[in-house]
Amino acid sequence: MELAILGGTGDIGEGLAVRYAADTDHRVVIGSRKAEKAVDRAGDYEERLADHGIDRDIEGAANADAAAGADVVVLAIPPHHVADTVADLAEEGVLDDQLVVSPAVGMQGDADGLHYRPPKVGSVTELVAERAPDGLAVAGAFHNLAADRLANLDADLDVDTLVVADDESVRQQVIDLANELDGIRALAAGPLSNAAEVESVTPLVINVARYNEDMHDVGVTFH
Amino acid sequence: MELAILGGTGDIGEGLAVRYAADTDHRVVIGSRKAEKAVDRAGDYEERLADHGIDRDIEGAANADAAAGADVVVLAIPPHHVADTVADLAEEGVLDDQLVVSPAVGMQGDADGLHYRPPKVGSVTELVAERAPDGLAVAGAFHNLAADRLANLDADLDVDTLVVADDESVRQQVIDLANELDGIRALAAGPLSNAAEVESVTPLVINVARYNEDMHDVGVTFH
Repeated sequence: MELAILGGTGDIGEGLAVRYAADTDHRVVIGSRKAEKAVDRAGDYEERLADHGIDRDIEGAANADAAAGADVVVLAIPPHHVADTVADLAEEGVLDDQLVVSPAVGMQGDADGLHYRPPKVGSVTELVAERAPDGLAVAGAFHNLAADRLANLDADLDVDTLVVADDESVRQQVIDLANELDGIRALAAGPLSNAAEVESVTPLVINVARYNEDMHDVGVTFH
Repeated sequence: MELAILGGTGDIGEGLAVRYAADTDHRVVIGSRKAEKAVDRAGDYEERLADHGIDRDIEGAANADAAAGADVVVLAIPPHHVADTVADLAEEGVLDDQLVVSPAVGMQGDADGLHYRPPKVGSVTELVAERAPDGLAVAGAFHNLAADRLANLDADLDVDTLVVADDESVRQQVIDLANELDGIRALAAGPLSNAAEVESVTPLVINVARYNEDMHDVGVTFH
């Protein structure tokens, strides 16, 4: 399977790319607005994997090229750009039968902490679904994984991620995909209309890390 | 210390009352709109504790009477009534130097699941603070404890609760109070303006219980 991580040069993209390369046999392609940057970073990720004794290729490409050949497209793109990126990819005819996964969360910070600020449609995940071509499979996942912990191959994850999708088989497919990462347990959180409560955990875990001593890169477990 | 649990005949109130009676030496008073109902239920709780070999008094009183003599007042009241209850208690002069703790969450259900629906001020916790007399210590806590699990003295909790309060010493006082319950770890989530992200976990854990087999009365831990 080919996994494209758009915005794969950013922090959450980096973590997903190196983890999928380390833990699975999927072909991993990172996308960026500039192909050259993606290729450079892919090389960096390969070196980091090699430092851990893992010999794996990671490819780099412009976002549209990365998405075009992929089975699964993860939109590891800042929340304010993700809707336009999806609309552009749709217009370019790049998105047709991929499974699209949205991990982005709209947040705003003030002196007290980070606050959840979803777009008007209710959540970034639903905004992605709105902008994607009709019938494309869209899911939300990986929202509240701490980027540094994810990118650090020496760190044990032992965290849950929540998956939302309207179609139950799509949801299960993304749960299976997420469960392939060591230390991640994926749980279903229902249809896309339940995405806001899932996304809202991201500012919360950052606030929890801020207000409690000795807690960093906080993850969450449900039980 | 005297702990008044208003709405102590409801599900979350029941759990807090029996747990505080079982795990601490605090005097526990449950309040209800009708004193008689509170007294009856307090007797039921005492019997349940006795069944577990625990000999403890729980008192019952009308909400205002329960609050008047308490050091800490927990508002285990449905979200749509809590603001009026606080305003009434304030008007009656019952609230002056207690520490008020709000566990209520505004939610709305549809076919897909439960959704977080805060009041306009941002969260129920902030609404309570708005209606409370100026200078009264207000905190949010106990929002996302599964009521049945809390009320079942045979159940291990092993869950976290998140505490918000503007004043750091108030926050710490409520953290210490929550930590007195066996199996609960209290974490700070910052000032009241961070309450929405805390409250939003409640519909989420209910959705997670619904969409995952073998998960019931779901709690959450941060790590």
